[in-house]
Amino acid sequence: MNWLDAIQWDRDGLVPVIAQEAGSKDVLMFAFMNREALAETASSGRAVYWSRSRQRLWRKGEQSGHVQQVLGIRLDCDNDVILLEVAQLGHDPAQASIACHTGRHSCFFHKLEDGRWNSVEPVLKDPEAIYK
Amino acid sequence: MNWLDAIQWDRDGLVPVIAQEAGSKDVLMFAFMNREALAETASSGRAVYWSRSRQRLWRKGEQSGHVQQVLGIRLDCDNDVILLEVAQLGHDPAQASIACHTGRHSCFFHKLEDGRWNSVEPVLKDPEAIYK
Repeated sequence: MNWLDAIQWDRDGLVPVIAQEAGSKDVLMFAFMNREALAETASSGRAVYWSRSRQRLWRKGEQSGHVQQVLGIRLDCDNDVILLEVAQLGHDPAQASIACHTGRHSCFFHKLEDGRWNSVEPVLKDPEAIYK
Repeated sequence: MNWLDAIQWDRDGLVPVIAQEAGSKDVLMFAFMNREALAETASSGRAVYWSRSRQRLWRKGEQSGHVQQVLGIRLDCDNDVILLEVAQLGHDPAQASIACHTGRHSCFFHKLEDGRWNSVEPVLKDPEAIYK
């Protein structure tokens, strides 16, 4: 059996994907893949997602240069969620890596504190400079 | 504005949630919350999910004892994914914690190796003994 057939794709033919950074173990982002995206991710060793807003394959880093090298691919107990172990590339090596389109390290930069969402991670690079 | 109103709930009124263990930083599981589940999670300090299969609130650990104490709640850049920082409780303290209903530490125990999904984490406790 093809390993892709083991996956329980959702009603839209997608599977949710968590990208975790190797080393820091920070959770960087969350996105979706369709079958084609996951197949290419595995064969190329670079993360390829399915953009729901643009309805097309999204080769992470194609615009920003913030490519994700894939070091490991895991599947959960229900066969319906993927966990990617990635090396986040393309950033200034003197700083933390940048996975988020806002220019931050991680997409999970809002923290609930005293009933409010506070932004707790710095912008490492101006998005205007990322998406020229 | 209520902090719950900032969240972009999906068409089913749910938000995907990643639970990451404090300390180890292991990604333990992935589930969904509705508004009521997230509100109770924040107020009680224990993870409460929405079970899509049972269509009811699922207070993690209610059967297994494997309760998740919530140490932090984060929201992503698009306001549509939650990242929980948890302490996974209820296990034999001489072993790793147990988050998965299969009796494993993490739900992400299938690893893609040479085109096959291999189970790479041990069962720490027999599910028959967990769900008596």
